[in-house]
Amino acid sequence: MTELKAIDPDYETRVRSSFEKQGVMKTIGASLIKIAPGEAVIEFSHDQSLTQQHGYIHAGVVTTVVDSACGYAAYTLMPAGSEVLTIEYKVNFMSPAKGERFRCVGKVLKSGRTITVCSGEVIAVLAGKEIVVASMQATMICLVK
Amino acid sequence: MTELKAIDPDYETRVRSSFEKQGVMKTIGASLIKIAPGEAVIEFSHDQSLTQQHGYIHAGVVTTVVDSACGYAAYTLMPAGSEVLTIEYKVNFMSPAKGERFRCVGKVLKSGRTITVCSGEVIAVLAGKEIVVASMQATMICLVK
Amino acid sequence: MTELKAIDPDYETRVRSSFEKQGVMKTIGASLIKIAPGEAVIEFSHDQSLTQQHGYIHAGVVTTVVDSACGYAAYTLMPAGSEVLTIEYKVNFMSPAKGERFRCVGKVLKSGRTITVCSGEVIAVLAGKEIVVASMQATMICLVK
Amino acid sequence: MTELKAIDPDYETRVRSSFEKQGVMKTIGASLIKIAPGEAVIEFSHDQSLTQQHGYIHAGVVTTVVDSACGYAAYTLMPAGSEVLTIEYKVNFMSPAKGERFRCVGKVLKSGRTITVCSGEVIAVLAGKEIVVASMQATMICLVK
Repeated sequence: MTELKAIDPDYETRVRSSFEKQGVMKTIGASLIKIAPGEAVIEFSHDQSLTQQHGYIHAGVVTTVVDSACGYAAYTLMPAGSEVLTIEYKVNFMSPAKGERFRCVGKVLKSGRTITVCSGEVIAVLAGKEIVVASMQATMICLVK
Repeated sequence: MTELKAIDPDYETRVRSSFEKQGVMKTIGASLIKIAPGEAVIEFSHDQSLTQQHGYIHAGVVTTVVDSACGYAAYTLMPAGSEVLTIEYKVNFMSPAKGERFRCVGKVLKSGRTITVCSGEVIAVLAGKEIVVASMQATMICLVK
Repeated sequence: MTELKAIDPDYETRVRSSFEKQGVMKTIGASLIKIAPGEAVIEFSHDQSLTQQHGYIHAGVVTTVVDSACGYAAYTLMPAGSEVLTIEYKVNFMSPAKGERFRCVGKVLKSGRTITVCSGEVIAVLAGKEIVVASMQATMICLVK
Repeated sequence: MTELKAIDPDYETRVRSSFEKQGVMKTIGASLIKIAPGEAVIEFSHDQSLTQQHGYIHAGVVTTVVDSACGYAAYTLMPAGSEVLTIEYKVNFMSPAKGERFRCVGKVLKSGRTITVCSGEVIAVLAGKEIVVASMQATMICLVK
């Protein structure tokens, strides 16, 4: 991947302000822990309110957080005044989302004027060990008012 | 689609019991409103705790509920004593998830001994009108202990 | 699906002319057998030059033809002078592509100014019976010069 | 990615023998240029018989070759006597497939007894420069007779 540059110097403020407006991130207890051009990292912890039938984190919750990570990774490279929306994504679940904490990493694979392609990874942290539990490939669109 | 038959006569009890264990369904306020061989329908209402940055339902929440609908559609056709897990899914978001209520329909496209392919649809209900806001294609696996 | 209308009265000529330029359709021996607003159907026959290791049609060949069907379904609704490109697709393979002939149907699920979402289906015809062997969900983009 | 080990010492012979049976690889003029545990690389050259309407390689042809690369990457880790089949894949097309030559790299992300998840990349080589034109995420299944 070539190094990515943000065209909006205030991209971090813009991303953080958007993240604060996502009600579901509060419900999940997710924190935006890193923002850089073309990259975003969001973390959250295991909670019984987020589980599927076996007590692990529901695939959809994992998806929600890594979707936001991918969307904000894309949004760092978009111009001031733009909006980002998810067109589509695909996620493979490689292992059950079993862990104390989950790190969701979104990265831009290809940034275009309208379309941005991202890849996302969800890493479960369990007893000091890390394992990739899900892998996303997503398409984002930039809307300019 | 040919008519699908459940091999386990108690499939509905099995599905409802699994649904009750999904902590995230309570968090979302989702209800399982229909179970039939090869089909499941789950509904939920708009709530600020489920939103993205524009105040609509987050794509990941929509995904969470339609994933459960697809998983349970697949699970109706699996044998007693089995477990269902999502291997992967793909979702296209056709319109923002703007509505008072959302109906998530999961249907089995192809049921195999190990692998089941499902399609899912999310319909937003807004001021008496219905619109398809998302379309899922998912792969489920049957685990027999 | 609401009924779809083409804004370009010459959409069929435009689609057929584009189809003729696809060298790979000749290599596969594929024929465009139906064009209607929001829909395209392309057929091809089994040939040893298109096979995978078990002698069935390679998943990628099936994908090639149903991708063209989806792309042209989308293209029927785009304006004169535009171009259509595939952004991404996802395909589930439900059965091996075993048959004498294959019908690939592309349909528009949601048509937007820039983005069109399509679904595709591949039906194998074998000894007078038809079976759906693959299901596609695709995103197309409209480029206006 | 942890280092992957093949359980079948004859995996390379098994993969090459399967590749030789794929009629479509001959039609495309593709060569298997690397096989290692959890990895396969296949190359092919631009040819007018493989094009879409703008004269670039059709998305489906790119998909065909990177699907084989992913499938054989998975197959290196499967036991003797097994067969590999593609369950599903998703591909993002980041740039038109414009080039003299194309390198399709398949890698195993997660290898299981039944299910293997792979990622694939298609690199176009044009006037000495390389560019990633497509990215695949695929699910393979191991069938043991």
